[in-house]
Amino acid sequence: MEIKALTALKERVLAANLALVKHNLVIFTWGNASEIDREAGFVAIKPGGVEYAEMTAEDIVIVDLNGKVIDGKLKPSSDTPTHLELYRRFPDIGGVAHTHSRFATVFAQEKKSLPTYGTTHADYFHGAIPCTRALTDDEINGDYELNTGRVIAECHPDPVGIPAVFVAGHAPFTWGKSAQEAVHNSAVLEEIALMALLMQQKEPVSQALSDKHYFRKHGANAYYGQK
Amino acid sequence: MEIKALTALKERVLAANLALVKHNLVIFTWGNASEIDREAGFVAIKPGGVEYAEMTAEDIVIVDLNGKVIDGKLKPSSDTPTHLELYRRFPDIGGVAHTHSRFATVFAQEKKSLPTYGTTHADYFHGAIPCTRALTDDEINGDYELNTGRVIAECHPDPVGIPAVFVAGHAPFTWGKSAQEAVHNSAVLEEIALMALLMQQKEPVSQALSDKHYFRKHGANAYYGQK
Amino acid sequence: MEIKALTALKERVLAANLALVKHNLVIFTWGNASEIDREAGFVAIKPGGVEYAEMTAEDIVIVDLNGKVIDGKLKPSSDTPTHLELYRRFPDIGGVAHTHSRFATVFAQEKKSLPTYGTTHADYFHGAIPCTRALTDDEINGDYELNTGRVIAECHPDPVGIPAVFVAGHAPFTWGKSAQEAVHNSAVLEEIALMALLMQQKEPVSQALSDKHYFRKHGANAYYGQK
Amino acid sequence: MEIKALTALKERVLAANLALVKHNLVIFTWGNASEIDREAGFVAIKPGGVEYAEMTAEDIVIVDLNGKVIDGKLKPSSDTPTHLELYRRFPDIGGVAHTHSRFATVFAQEKKSLPTYGTTHADYFHGAIPCTRALTDDEINGDYELNTGRVIAECHPDPVGIPAVFVAGHAPFTWGKSAQEAVHNSAVLEEIALMALLMQQKEPVSQALSDKHYFRKHGANAYYGQK
Repeated sequence: MEIKALTALKERVLAANLALVKHNLVIFTWGNASEIDREAGFVAIKPGGVEYAEMTAEDIVIVDLNGKVIDGKLKPSSDTPTHLELYRRFPDIGGVAHTHSRFATVFAQEKKSLPTYGTTHADYFHGAIPCTRALTDDEINGDYELNTGRVIAECHPDPVGIPAVFVAGHAPFTWGKSAQEAVHNSAVLEEIALMALLMQQKEPVSQALSDKHYFRKHGANAYYGQK
Repeated sequence: MEIKALTALKERVLAANLALVKHNLVIFTWGNASEIDREAGFVAIKPGGVEYAEMTAEDIVIVDLNGKVIDGKLKPSSDTPTHLELYRRFPDIGGVAHTHSRFATVFAQEKKSLPTYGTTHADYFHGAIPCTRALTDDEINGDYELNTGRVIAECHPDPVGIPAVFVAGHAPFTWGKSAQEAVHNSAVLEEIALMALLMQQKEPVSQALSDKHYFRKHGANAYYGQK
Repeated sequence: MEIKALTALKERVLAANLALVKHNLVIFTWGNASEIDREAGFVAIKPGGVEYAEMTAEDIVIVDLNGKVIDGKLKPSSDTPTHLELYRRFPDIGGVAHTHSRFATVFAQEKKSLPTYGTTHADYFHGAIPCTRALTDDEINGDYELNTGRVIAECHPDPVGIPAVFVAGHAPFTWGKSAQEAVHNSAVLEEIALMALLMQQKEPVSQALSDKHYFRKHGANAYYGQK
Repeated sequence: MEIKALTALKERVLAANLALVKHNLVIFTWGNASEIDREAGFVAIKPGGVEYAEMTAEDIVIVDLNGKVIDGKLKPSSDTPTHLELYRRFPDIGGVAHTHSRFATVFAQEKKSLPTYGTTHADYFHGAIPCTRALTDDEINGDYELNTGRVIAECHPDPVGIPAVFVAGHAPFTWGKSAQEAVHNSAVLEEIALMALLMQQKEPVSQALSDKHYFRKHGANAYYGQK
């Protein structure tokens, strides 16, 4: 990669990480966002344990798809192997975000999937947000962060249509075409998780309504916004 | 319409749309407000999918009551046919607002009406906020946004006295004499929806108390505020 | 009253009303605070229906204990007769505040009293916050705001030790030595109401703990803070 | 202690107290943080009942482990005997914080411990946050604040691994290596308490997952962040 493209990638990833804080999805160092340059095979990711207020584009770490550090003085986030597994298993995605946002994390802690209870959900996710199975003790005591990525891929029916997952007992991961879109999806997930938590009578919308709202915004026949 | 009046209309509609964000009723592009000039038959409405932070009065789109764009370079909100149906069916209203605000949307997702549980409700709404029936698959796959307006009009007992509705599986619409009043009613609806969600023992207030608070603020015998 | 004292009273009442907004207890014009000068028998109160952002000390209205306007160009709050009844019936109080704050209003809508579930409550209120009975239709259709004051006084066991009440179907009133203290008590009430709403197993604290915390802060043996 | 070290201690304790407000853990004067200099045996603590907005480093009070005021013009917080008992009983801690933060206080009011429902909890606390028994009437009417410290020590299985407790009917205390870390743990406790309150199906994570996340961040084999 040329220096200019690499710098631009780092700046996008910095901006995406700061957006996690701006959208009230992350406190302290509880989250991370990354983006991949598919051509180079390089992933830019937040360094581990660094305060958002002090982070600069220079702190963003570049690793290859095997986790080897290509550029940067700091250690990449300890969740890096999860991000990399998602990039390897889901070839169409370009960015990943991980938070412990309050309401989505409740779903993860309850080990529950989130059905399409309304059109806010359907506007972004074409079906229920799945929840992984709990990791086995061996998976936890082995390559834990890698295995987290594996159980996500194992459970996920549609990574392009449903760019989010709950990791059982842990928290959500979301993704998208870019780090920024992944963060956007984290914010949407938090809203629909809250709304679902407040529902007493829970009944999903019809498949027709889910399809209508999803395809109003996505794909060849989208007509939402300025499309 | 004269240019001056048209510009003023656009500025009022821009201000109303920005007020949706200020009142924490809308994130991203998840809402829209419009206002009608009844004499001209022109409706000013938010363009679709445009970020609030970047929107100017020039971006506001003018359509006639059949949805034909009269003025503006952008596409009007994809919810425009719903707004127009409300203007056609409810001749006394002058502004419409649509949000996916958290607590009102929970009611829509639960397909529940909201009875008058307190005087905060009665100060603004003279009776329960109704919820539409779910649209049929044919209605969804046909003129979806127009049909959304139709089911609102179909279910609504009193558009002047109760300027709000929940659309089943979707979210609220509110209205009023102007776009600004429609937005104000969205904010009120959000408050009373939250309070209702937190109630464990739910019993509406008496008709006398509902009448007292409503007519203290509305109609010939109002004495609230500086009336 | 001398002009200087009257101006100071108005300024204190303006500040207390603005504090309602600052503490997130009031949106739009949904609240009011007043203070009495017991010697003069004058009550300073918010004008009705005026936006907080535009209010000045000059807008504060002075009425006597019979509700006669002594000073001010605007109409006093429509809730003035409730405030006046509280000043007449509770001779030891100096300020009154009324809000539709979210969590306290839920208690009013549920027509429930709030027992002493924790020391946060006991630090300020020496016993359960009572809730009035619902007003009869005759009371609603008669001198409604005056009758609201009457049912508060009718139900209240200890206006000095428990400076708050829920009005059934309506919202809370609080009071204190001054308008500022009344507003402070509104903010405390909102916190303890929220905490109580979130409790699943509800058991009041012991009388000994309630007494300890209350008398740590109030009365001859208080030792909290710099006392 | 040298004046310079004493001043630095006061400034750290002031900063920690202000951080309680910044993290929305404290309103009015409802909280306090302290830090100990183990070598000197001096504890710096917030003065009682002083508004955070007006507090300066000079207002921070220095007491010895018996509660004797060594330096400062104001009275120390009325909760000082609780802090001192924690420093005496838990020799490895360096800072203590006390709040009435909303969600943690709900647990205290419910007299419930908080199991490890997710990895957010496990990242900071190696096991369930315990809740003390209720104090007896004699304990309340005797040295109340000292006895509060005693029941904390009595119930606590692991002060180093689980730097937090709920005091039954009252509110949380947290601690850490410094006042700042104690405040940080208060903020974490508030998040995990909220998430637990929102869970409907409550099942702790496996011991393996709890261990993994705790030891990823703590101890000789930690690899989280830049470790």
